[in-house]
Amino acid sequence: MTINQQQLIDWRREFHQFPETGWCEFLTTTKLAAYLSEMGFEVRLGKAIINEEFVRGRQQAIVDAGLKRAIEKGADQNWLDKMDGYTGLVAIFDSGKAGNTVALRFDIDCVNVQETAAPGHIPNQLGFRSQNDGFMHACGHDGHMAIGLGVAQWIADNKAQLNGKIKLVFQPAEEGVRGAAAIAASGIVDDADYFAASHLSFCADSGTIIANPKKFLCTTKIDIRYQGKPAHAGAAPHLGRNALLAAAHAVTQLHGISRHGDGMTRINVGVLKAGEGRNVIPTTAEVQLEVRGENAEINQYMVDQVMQIAKGISVSFDVAYETEIMGEAVDLDNDAELVDLISELAEKETGVTQVAPTYSFNGSEDATILGRRVQQHGGKAIYFIVGADRTAGHHQAEFDFDEKQLLTGVNLYTALLQRLNG
Amino acid sequence: MTINQQQLIDWRREFHQFPETGWCEFLTTTKLAAYLSEMGFEVRLGKAIINEEFVRGRQQAIVDAGLKRAIEKGADQNWLDKMDGYTGLVAIFDSGKAGNTVALRFDIDCVNVQETAAPGHIPNQLGFRSQNDGFMHACGHDGHMAIGLGVAQWIADNKAQLNGKIKLVFQPAEEGVRGAAAIAASGIVDDADYFAASHLSFCADSGTIIANPKKFLCTTKIDIRYQGKPAHAGAAPHLGRNALLAAAHAVTQLHGISRHGDGMTRINVGVLKAGEGRNVIPTTAEVQLEVRGENAEINQYMVDQVMQIAKGISVSFDVAYETEIMGEAVDLDNDAELVDLISELAEKETGVTQVAPTYSFNGSEDATILGRRVQQHGGKAIYFIVGADRTAGHHQAEFDFDEKQLLTGVNLYTALLQRLNG
Amino acid sequence: MTINQQQLIDWRREFHQFPETGWCEFLTTTKLAAYLSEMGFEVRLGKAIINEEFVRGRQQAIVDAGLKRAIEKGADQNWLDKMDGYTGLVAIFDSGKAGNTVALRFDIDCVNVQETAAPGHIPNQLGFRSQNDGFMHACGHDGHMAIGLGVAQWIADNKAQLNGKIKLVFQPAEEGVRGAAAIAASGIVDDADYFAASHLSFCADSGTIIANPKKFLCTTKIDIRYQGKPAHAGAAPHLGRNALLAAAHAVTQLHGISRHGDGMTRINVGVLKAGEGRNVIPTTAEVQLEVRGENAEINQYMVDQVMQIAKGISVSFDVAYETEIMGEAVDLDNDAELVDLISELAEKETGVTQVAPTYSFNGSEDATILGRRVQQHGGKAIYFIVGADRTAGHHQAEFDFDEKQLLTGVNLYTALLQRLNG
Amino acid sequence: MTINQQQLIDWRREFHQFPETGWCEFLTTTKLAAYLSEMGFEVRLGKAIINEEFVRGRQQAIVDAGLKRAIEKGADQNWLDKMDGYTGLVAIFDSGKAGNTVALRFDIDCVNVQETAAPGHIPNQLGFRSQNDGFMHACGHDGHMAIGLGVAQWIADNKAQLNGKIKLVFQPAEEGVRGAAAIAASGIVDDADYFAASHLSFCADSGTIIANPKKFLCTTKIDIRYQGKPAHAGAAPHLGRNALLAAAHAVTQLHGISRHGDGMTRINVGVLKAGEGRNVIPTTAEVQLEVRGENAEINQYMVDQVMQIAKGISVSFDVAYETEIMGEAVDLDNDAELVDLISELAEKETGVTQVAPTYSFNGSEDATILGRRVQQHGGKAIYFIVGADRTAGHHQAEFDFDEKQLLTGVNLYTALLQRLNG
Repeated sequence: MTINQQQLIDWRREFHQFPETGWCEFLTTTKLAAYLSEMGFEVRLGKAIINEEFVRGRQQAIVDAGLKRAIEKGADQNWLDKMDGYTGLVAIFDSGKAGNTVALRFDIDCVNVQETAAPGHIPNQLGFRSQNDGFMHACGHDGHMAIGLGVAQWIADNKAQLNGKIKLVFQPAEEGVRGAAAIAASGIVDDADYFAASHLSFCADSGTIIANPKKFLCTTKIDIRYQGKPAHAGAAPHLGRNALLAAAHAVTQLHGISRHGDGMTRINVGVLKAGEGRNVIPTTAEVQLEVRGENAEINQYMVDQVMQIAKGISVSFDVAYETEIMGEAVDLDNDAELVDLISELAEKETGVTQVAPTYSFNGSEDATILGRRVQQHGGKAIYFIVGADRTAGHHQAEFDFDEKQLLTGVNLYTALLQRLNG
Repeated sequence: MTINQQQLIDWRREFHQFPETGWCEFLTTTKLAAYLSEMGFEVRLGKAIINEEFVRGRQQAIVDAGLKRAIEKGADQNWLDKMDGYTGLVAIFDSGKAGNTVALRFDIDCVNVQETAAPGHIPNQLGFRSQNDGFMHACGHDGHMAIGLGVAQWIADNKAQLNGKIKLVFQPAEEGVRGAAAIAASGIVDDADYFAASHLSFCADSGTIIANPKKFLCTTKIDIRYQGKPAHAGAAPHLGRNALLAAAHAVTQLHGISRHGDGMTRINVGVLKAGEGRNVIPTTAEVQLEVRGENAEINQYMVDQVMQIAKGISVSFDVAYETEIMGEAVDLDNDAELVDLISELAEKETGVTQVAPTYSFNGSEDATILGRRVQQHGGKAIYFIVGADRTAGHHQAEFDFDEKQLLTGVNLYTALLQRLNG
Repeated sequence: MTINQQQLIDWRREFHQFPETGWCEFLTTTKLAAYLSEMGFEVRLGKAIINEEFVRGRQQAIVDAGLKRAIEKGADQNWLDKMDGYTGLVAIFDSGKAGNTVALRFDIDCVNVQETAAPGHIPNQLGFRSQNDGFMHACGHDGHMAIGLGVAQWIADNKAQLNGKIKLVFQPAEEGVRGAAAIAASGIVDDADYFAASHLSFCADSGTIIANPKKFLCTTKIDIRYQGKPAHAGAAPHLGRNALLAAAHAVTQLHGISRHGDGMTRINVGVLKAGEGRNVIPTTAEVQLEVRGENAEINQYMVDQVMQIAKGISVSFDVAYETEIMGEAVDLDNDAELVDLISELAEKETGVTQVAPTYSFNGSEDATILGRRVQQHGGKAIYFIVGADRTAGHHQAEFDFDEKQLLTGVNLYTALLQRLNG
Repeated sequence: MTINQQQLIDWRREFHQFPETGWCEFLTTTKLAAYLSEMGFEVRLGKAIINEEFVRGRQQAIVDAGLKRAIEKGADQNWLDKMDGYTGLVAIFDSGKAGNTVALRFDIDCVNVQETAAPGHIPNQLGFRSQNDGFMHACGHDGHMAIGLGVAQWIADNKAQLNGKIKLVFQPAEEGVRGAAAIAASGIVDDADYFAASHLSFCADSGTIIANPKKFLCTTKIDIRYQGKPAHAGAAPHLGRNALLAAAHAVTQLHGISRHGDGMTRINVGVLKAGEGRNVIPTTAEVQLEVRGENAEINQYMVDQVMQIAKGISVSFDVAYETEIMGEAVDLDNDAELVDLISELAEKETGVTQVAPTYSFNGSEDATILGRRVQQHGGKAIYFIVGADRTAGHHQAEFDFDEKQLLTGVNLYTALLQRLNG
């Protein structure tokens, strides 16, 4: 049996209309839950698949607003109750027979972009543009979910022929690399023998499969917050504790963290907000930064330096401080067995005209955290790219992709499952 | 004839209900214009008394919002047309006879404070609390306007006995010391032989007149804005021009401006906002600061250093920049003739129990700019304080003052005019 | 009996030839000890009058070199043995009769200046120029010692008429305000009912006595030293701990210490030396700074901020650090009784044409530490200035002063003793 | 004919006794000139082979001291006259016949290291240790010169069989990568069809030849000097222009230069010296730094940023400044033809047991500037390593090397010349 291409497109367009930002995918999760339980999967939702200690970059006020909107848009309260405040789900198929455990990951959040109003933009022409102002599936995660549901449908349709276990991980908050850490830490993929995840389009056009991307940048996103003491800047400046001045010095120290002799590093303080008024010694400052490293050890070196500086500054300026890890991703070395397998399967796929074995990813993706978790527990992992023509770069208001490649994605995953669980 | 105390209180309470922030006093100005033209004064409004080159700290978006609300609240369109976008007015009485030209200044803007909801707060009890959310006459400028109108009424009632010329300056945007520079630069007070201005309450209780405040802090409020170039912080950081990093270094340099051997200086960067996102080289940064100096020369030293640093940083980081003076005030040495005169008149005033000749103001007030302008043109100037009990400090949500002192203020000004123009 | 003016000049010229820098006044001390013991004083030397915990700015290598030269120049080994490594002495006269204890202080060190070779310079003309290359009595301490010996001679000549006790403190290391703290902390002046010290020339010409200098600046001289870890700057910069970078950031933080609302402050990092080579991560850095404050409390605020920053930087950069107080002086309020007394005595002195009662010192002098110590123990203190024409500013290579004023100094001190111990 | 090994060793030991630091190789150059002119070469000395505009890191005071010592040690005045203040020479052999022009480069300066006094150190045992205190041939350049002379002797002995032209470049000031730029810029190697240079020992033991080192780090050594204005730090700090504070801020900005997206960068401020005294606003500061880049373009990016910062700081702090390039080296891609040739010849060489084709150099060497100059003019270039056992790392006081490998070096060069000019 083949997958119905129109069904994939319909799913994708449905999700495209209700984009939800990271940790707010309440409507999205309830819709997925409904589809997947209907197909016969065991569905574990929200808090059940989250280790709260590793939740990154989740702000309660934003979550509350997201939940409120999801309810207004008709999210099913029964599912919401089960989620207990957290989004995402894992759908589990257990054949009851011996065999491999395979985990596949699909990310479900959108980006904070206002979709273009250009009449030529297909979602506008065909009437499926974002109904959530300021949010858009401009990275293709709507497509990833459609692929996930297609794979699920195939499993449901072929369950008798399958052995082992399959876990479909629908992960929240990939943007900002915030969601994977908490799911990995829950242990839900620890028993996986194989793990696979992929991205649509990226840099590859329709017809191309990149089987072995390399150079995933390890990254950690960190916020530093300083809390000082106010004082009148004219009358008694010496009584203040200046959080803004502390933060400014922190920035100058952070950008001066030494290069690492063993490989690439990056540091960027991307946002700085401090102070309350011109004539008051500033009492609050927030420094939003990210570091990167060529590998996990080098990235950790950067994190350590940041933490050291955050603390040293608090001593110098006698201000209180806190740091929060807002996101993280690691690097991933794809296992050769899976690279070979995906390459072989891709070669056989109709419509695939080029299998590009390696490619420098030069970005961060938190599927790597799940992949490395599986590898650390003895399993094998791969992250690959399913080419698709696009109308604009990812994260741009004009982004759209070739929906025909949804089927390519489903076909590759199901061919993989056929091999591993067939 | 004596002034009607209840009239003063009524005026004050009327203005208290419609507080408007600096450069947005559209309803306020139209009301004043109506009263003063009704009394027979020549009224010059808005742009007519403004030198646009010296307008400080006026943001068009805020002005637009203020104008919109003023129109909603019923501001007279005829007066608005004459104002041509600017607030404030000068009411002129010309006796047609030889004599002194005397300028008095009353400030008309409110502060950005939400008035307390406490039931014991008199404006709540008596039903005249602010109807403009987030704005409040919490500094007593509503009282200053009432005094100004009382003085105007007295002039109108006594015009036959007066000689020379009297100019009543109703000045916008005193908060942040933003409004006086543009009015002074218009030349409207250049012909004044005498200039007087005052503040209600401040640090003095009912019954006290401070005839000779000293130590007005010279101050300049400056914004520095840097404009850089974006780049992906992971892939191509070297292509960016980092406005946030520039601003952080600017802050560290600014706070290091050398003390001045000849007297007190201050520097405070009170607000810093920079950057767009964690993984993008930041392209915008705004540094909001103020400097102070014990006298105009020392304050100018600080301004010069700030400008030098703003420029040097733009060179170091290859970012574009602009600086804007957002406010300014100078110091003022009250002329002895006027100090003696106010002291003498205050001694005679019923209800004045103490005339305190000197006092350290230790704050900034832009009436000083008008006073110094008059002095530079050969006139004499004074700034004094009319004591009034208060329920809380100025600028606090619970601020209210003893309305009986409005009459004290009017009596002092009219006694002064009697001497100078009688 | 009157003092022999030629004797004073001879003494001064003798000391002028053997200038010794702070903590190295070995030859000087032995010469003084010889003269004073010969006159009959009890002499306590070096370590006996020092509390080592409060020794400031004494570097062993420099002391060793100084001692070596003093021995070469003929310093008496017996005296050196008694000094036990420290310079300075206190000569004590005890009348055995009831009466006041009076302490006078004379400083004995030179400055690190190469004396001019100009033929018109009197020490060159008359053959008493410095024989110690790179060192010169360019501040007049040679004259102070001559005055001290003159006073001693007078005491010796008049001992029968005196009562109470007199302590002549010949203090090392006044330059850099390094020596007084250790002598004060030894307790040697704790029993003094009166304390007096003075400076020759300064800003006053021959014939002028300034009886009541004010505005002595409190100051603390501090060194901060950072110790990092080396690494090859190309191959493994991340393995280093960068002491130079730490020090540079320390400097930027130090100069940003907030002004104090209650009075004048100063901060100056005057010297910074760091690093070993261009391609090695620097491992050592020394920051030499001073702070000042309008009073002791404000000065202490500055010291506290410096210490906080020194520590914070060590945390940020993971470098070891130490701080050392290299010198210190406080402010001094002269006691009115002594101001009146010196004024009265000065008026009577032949050759004194002007007694200027107050004057802004605007500098630092560590006699203040001894004076305040006496005041804290219930005694009274004064620091005054004995005017003397000078050929150039203090500390300049061309400095010389009017030697006739040595007698004025002696006369004032002996007149004072006559009153207090007569 | 074979080269006499003892002669090579004698030459090496002669030079070992008279080590001269960069730009001071006066005695060395005169000795080389004498030998080479005696062998019949045309000798061009000093200024004749220097483009003064590109002289890096040459300080006149050091050069003067070096020249003085060279003269004391017996440097021939005739040769010195021809050198005209500059060291180094090029010995030219012109066969008069058509053929290739081949340039070989040998560096001649020592390092600033005090040779060990350890009795087991061979130069101590055999009596040829450094006679110049504080200087030592601890990098093997004495050996390089011996090889150069050996090659010269072979050319002289075989001139009839040779065609084309051979230039032996004896380059000064390789340490700090200071000397090559000026020689390259003189144009002396522009006509070379082939260029070769090598290093003894480095990381390779006796018997190994590394034919194709890679990863030469491009580097530029820069000094920044700030000149401010003095002022008394207590009385009038605002009158100063603080060069130390400027330099400290420069350091914090320099270390914050953004990483480059296309490859490795380095920055190190290795030495910072600033200020004159604790209580004076500092007037001088020197920042000694180096940058590196993975290739010439990236290195130039770093240089550009440094220059931008140097200038921006001068604006911020109103101090004068100058920058000086103290040294520079580029990267070099060895030409395959020469790599193959050296490999082939090395394989044939008695005593060579291993030919290691590639190796990561990870350091800087200014022969690359000459090599790239030749390549830019259409020629081919190689830099290779002649292994030699060593007793300690290069630049260490205990360094010595296996003198038998001098012959290996000569044999390789002469075999190469046989091929290219045979």
